Amino acid sequence: MSVTAAVGFRAAGATAGLKASGSPDVALVVNDGPEHAVAAVFTTNRVEAAPVTWSRQVVADGRADAVFLNSGGANACTGPRGFGDTHRTAEVVADTLGVSATDVVVCSTGLIGEYLPMDRIEAGIALTAADLGLEGGADAARAIMTTDTVPKEAVATGDGWTVGGMAKGAGMLAPGLATMLCVITTDAVASPDVLAEALRSATSRTFDRVDSDGCMSTNDTVVLMSSGASGVSVDVGALTDAVTEVCASLARQLVADAEGASHDIAVEVRSAATESEAVEVARAVTRSNLFKAAIFGRDPNWGRVLSAVGTTSAQFDASRLDVAINGIEVCRAATIGDDRDLVDLSGREVRVVVDLHAGDATATVWTNDLTHDYVHENSAYST
Amino acid sequence: MSVTAAVGFRAAGATAGLKASGSPDVALVVNDGPEHAVAAVFTTNRVEAAPVTWSRQVVADGRADAVFLNSGGANACTGPRGFGDTHRTAEVVADTLGVSATDVVVCSTGLIGEYLPMDRIEAGIALTAADLGLEGGADAARAIMTTDTVPKEAVATGDGWTVGGMAKGAGMLAPGLATMLCVITTDAVASPDVLAEALRSATSRTFDRVDSDGCMSTNDTVVLMSSGASGVSVDVGALTDAVTEVCASLARQLVADAEGASHDIAVEVRSAATESEAVEVARAVTRSNLFKAAIFGRDPNWGRVLSAVGTTSAQFDASRLDVAINGIEVCRAATIGDDRDLVDLSGREVRVVVDLHAGDATATVWTNDLTHDYVHENSAYST
Repeated sequence: MSVTAAVGFRAAGATAGLKASGSPDVALVVNDGPEHAVAAVFTTNRVEAAPVTWSRQVVADGRADAVFLNSGGANACTGPRGFGDTHRTAEVVADTLGVSATDVVVCSTGLIGEYLPMDRIEAGIALTAADLGLEGGADAARAIMTTDTVPKEAVATGDGWTVGGMAKGAGMLAPGLATMLCVITTDAVASPDVLAEALRSATSRTFDRVDSDGCMSTNDTVVLMSSGASGVSVDVGALTDAVTEVCASLARQLVADAEGASHDIAVEVRSAATESEAVEVARAVTRSNLFKAAIFGRDPNWGRVLSAVGTTSAQFDASRLDVAINGIEVCRAATIGDDRDLVDLSGREVRVVVDLHAGDATATVWTNDLTHDYVHENSAYST
Repeated sequence: MSVTAAVGFRAAGATAGLKASGSPDVALVVNDGPEHAVAAVFTTNRVEAAPVTWSRQVVADGRADAVFLNSGGANACTGPRGFGDTHRTAEVVADTLGVSATDVVVCSTGLIGEYLPMDRIEAGIALTAADLGLEGGADAARAIMTTDTVPKEAVATGDGWTVGGMAKGAGMLAPGLATMLCVITTDAVASPDVLAEALRSATSRTFDRVDSDGCMSTNDTVVLMSSGASGVSVDVGALTDAVTEVCASLARQLVADAEGASHDIAVEVRSAATESEAVEVARAVTRSNLFKAAIFGRDPNWGRVLSAVGTTSAQFDASRLDVAINGIEVCRAATIGDDRDLVDLSGREVRVVVDLHAGDATATVWTNDLTHDYVHENSAYST
């Protein structure tokens, strides 16, 4: 259901011929109202794609009527011509739907540094617009996949209202914003300001804490739209909880389907002085190629955890650090703890707990292992 | 020749049985004087190995008589017992040579989180002490190898004086200090302060600009000793030049022999506002797994270069960035430049030039590609 779970939204996915594989590659999500509030967060990468530049302007006034998305091409590093192509995309969508181009968000994903085939994009707009439906969420979620192997959808419900979302992203997942593209819809009545506050809060503790490969995309976009069609007004706390639930589910689905991964790794840092220091330490561990390769090899190599922790500026006494891997405290007080042979890494889920003994704050960052398949997927094809 | 190229030094390498492979695993370098000046730089990792903690104290007074090194075990995260083992190592070396234990530098490399077999270490001290020779540099360089496939040695000569060095390091190579272990000797007459200034200057532009895999070791140590045996006093500028020449050669040898690498990649950033910003941008590119996997796949994927550049805070206009790969300007003004099919990545050497158009500063950081063999070496074995 994803983006069509909430009342007031229609969606569609179609095949425009952007992908050599012939898989679906364009999606359209339309907000039928009565309200058309929007908020969005974008990549913090200073090299941003044309659709990001465009969509920042679209959402600035808090109103959007539709989101058009394409896989098969990022339209990043394409200069003025690329920006013109995004503008043209919005114009054609607007003409087709009878709305203003400045209320059409555009998202693209795929290879950087190539122009989009605009004839196919325009054909894709016509196809999706003709196929818009109240059950179209699943088709839309499938059409935005690139190296994803499964679509990502999530739904959360409030008292008389609903939040639903879809996301794609299988590589270039890193902080600042960890997914490439995500569209979330709700039929709750909420102003753009409330949407923005809920979205910032939700993404900061979900997508921002996924770090598959340390590489930040030029195209990351998360859009939240409300139709108000439920007629139920929500307070920001309730909306934040529901949006966070959807984002958390989608973020976990991204990790579970990251390029070439064989393990999903949660790095939980406990007893940090502050939450931001907990995140800093967790992120240092999730960025260690040596640690990630060890997990791929089912090697509970806690020395690689400690050596990553030691590169941070977080408060801790280096002689008091504890590390547990899947429940076995292999490192106690920064030296040899329980028998590392007791650690079972045969399953996909791995939980690393680092205790800093420096305070009460905690945070978890998710990542994947570093595998042969990751290297293969990212060396054998230009993506 | 390496550490025995300069007059006044003897060295040896031997097999103590620390490595399962039966390869040489202990080395001893002795400064016979008449002077015994020393300076050193160590890892900035806050989780530091026992030999690092010990050796910081040894060099604090500017005097050292010997360096004992072992591969086959890092003696890191081994607590008070590990520190006691390092202390004991220095005591036995000192007794054997007739010097003070507080003038014996100790270096270890290998797996983190295991105790050293001290009986074998002590046997190794006896073996190396008995075999010390004026031609022993090559044996010492071979004995400190871990996953290195070749020993690393370099020599530079001044007017009547010499600088020679050896290094090891094939993984966990990252800034702060990029090699695991390096010993440099000179017969020039130079005070500890001059040695320290020359060493800091040399390492900041050589080892600190190698970033094989972004992982900083707990054991990194670079030691520079002078015997004064040439009788030639040098000024700091001349010594810095010679030490830099040796360090630069050793650093390049480390990159050329990094674990599992098939390409050596120089990322040169030009026209930066400051040298530190040039380093920041170059390092962001050398840390991108996606970029490094692309180079392994011989794919001149400049979008992955730009997306890494865009994550930095260096001064630049994102619409003016140029990228050349092996001489082909594939990206001009942040958009599509010359035909990427012209880029030849079949050789081992790759040069990426990023032009920021923001000033006059430049810097180069070296790294390797991300390969199947890197994943294999770091997942199949605990190192």
